[in-house]
Amino acid sequence: MPDITLVEVGPRDGLQNEKGVVATDIKLALIRRLADAGFSRIEATAFVSPKWVPQMADHAAVMAGVPRRAGLIYSVLAPNEKGAAAAIAAGADEIAVFTAASESFARKNTNCSIAESLERFLPVMALARQAGIPVRGYVSCVLDCPYEGAIPAQAVAEVAARLDELGCVEISLGDTIGRGTPEATAAMVEAVAARVPVGRLAGHFHDTAGRALANVAAAHALGVTVFDGSVGGLGGCPYAPGAAGNVATEALVGFFEGQGLSTGIDLARLAETGRWVRAELGRAGG
Amino acid sequence: MPDITLVEVGPRDGLQNEKGVVATDIKLALIRRLADAGFSRIEATAFVSPKWVPQMADHAAVMAGVPRRAGLIYSVLAPNEKGAAAAIAAGADEIAVFTAASESFARKNTNCSIAESLERFLPVMALARQAGIPVRGYVSCVLDCPYEGAIPAQAVAEVAARLDELGCVEISLGDTIGRGTPEATAAMVEAVAARVPVGRLAGHFHDTAGRALANVAAAHALGVTVFDGSVGGLGGCPYAPGAAGNVATEALVGFFEGQGLSTGIDLARLAETGRWVRAELGRAGG
Repeated sequence: MPDITLVEVGPRDGLQNEKGVVATDIKLALIRRLADAGFSRIEATAFVSPKWVPQMADHAAVMAGVPRRAGLIYSVLAPNEKGAAAAIAAGADEIAVFTAASESFARKNTNCSIAESLERFLPVMALARQAGIPVRGYVSCVLDCPYEGAIPAQAVAEVAARLDELGCVEISLGDTIGRGTPEATAAMVEAVAARVPVGRLAGHFHDTAGRALANVAAAHALGVTVFDGSVGGLGGCPYAPGAAGNVATEALVGFFEGQGLSTGIDLARLAETGRWVRAELGRAGG
Repeated sequence: MPDITLVEVGPRDGLQNEKGVVATDIKLALIRRLADAGFSRIEATAFVSPKWVPQMADHAAVMAGVPRRAGLIYSVLAPNEKGAAAAIAAGADEIAVFTAASESFARKNTNCSIAESLERFLPVMALARQAGIPVRGYVSCVLDCPYEGAIPAQAVAEVAARLDELGCVEISLGDTIGRGTPEATAAMVEAVAARVPVGRLAGHFHDTAGRALANVAAAHALGVTVFDGSVGGLGGCPYAPGAAGNVATEALVGFFEGQGLSTGIDLARLAETGRWVRAELGRAGG
């Protein structure tokens, strides 16, 4: 068991936020390379309507083709009952649901209030329970919202506590626009950890302002040991102004290994995968 | 040739700033492991008086024992003519000299003014020229000084230009107390690059405030491709308040590999070396 668990979200969160649609065989090659690099958790695809997210339209083909290995968990985003049922039928090992700590962001992004988004999760939770698979809850805008500005830590704690009550085994706290500071991260994690055991929290940081690793350090100092990353920073170049900016998983590996903390990831293979997928995106005009 | 050149300064800058004196055989094992990890440049020791720096008293024994490999350059800090002569006699491939962009820091740290420190370098430069080896110039406090606060970018450019005139092949710009911001880093690098070709600049950042990699990114965006790092963050825990905080070389590797830029370093070996040397320091009571 490595000291730090890294959840690779490039195939879903990353590719969904890149321009252009990536071919299924490229996605499968990407996932195979990530499995070879040592990940135990990979977010593979999303069961959402192709009308809204054409990048993930091949979700069933992706799940049919992923390499199955002992101890390797494929998480799949599913926003509602229909998506969850399809994800489970396709062999997802884990379902991920998605809400926000900001009302404005929830309305713009999921077209409903935070409370309504939580209600939509009820049938998803029930299906997952029947199938015997865990559900991961994402909370976005845990530090700042593009519409509301700074988000109070207590608002995040409230949403996280509700996801916990609903039965999410892990709650991933996302600094969606990457404006957070280490100080704000610490205050937010403390507030959430007062409601949900810290061992069930994950950190999901964006490097838009170059502070992802400083925020990761702040969360780690408070006991968070699970972090999301995107190979090669897929989902936006982390160093271009205004970019989406998932923190590159490679940077997380180096950051933790530099403190003597194991991640179980082979960085050479991971970095090679990052170079390869970026070249593929370039070829695809993405 | 990798995209990014990392200069490993742990055996000198790192160990010099750790408590306790590390045994020569441990230093040699450390340097051998770093060579195995793929570094082409390692700062091995300092030829300074053991009265002032007891950690480096075994400099001659270290240089006699380092593994010699094609393309592997050992840099050695030498503050004056006597040190440089001894370093060259001991087989140094490169001499490093050390000044500051802050008058107060120069006085406290080298007991002379900046101008006087530069004058001391003249015989060092002459010896190195005779021996046919390059000289690297360090400038400390390029962003902030513990005594003077913010340092004007023009003051750094002035010192860097003088080192350039003296014949330094590379100038390493050090954010000694780690308070710098990416904005200040960019302004400083721009000012220096107006006087010294950017290809001859290196970045030396400390992670005391968690901004080392953000500052590295800012310098890299302006064309700097050489960066100093210390394996395992030797020379101060990067994440403890008030610590010295050399950025961990592992973090630099992950950071650049995450952008698809090669470093030539095997992170698994490097990380293993970081864990090993920290355990050795713990055993030594360091």
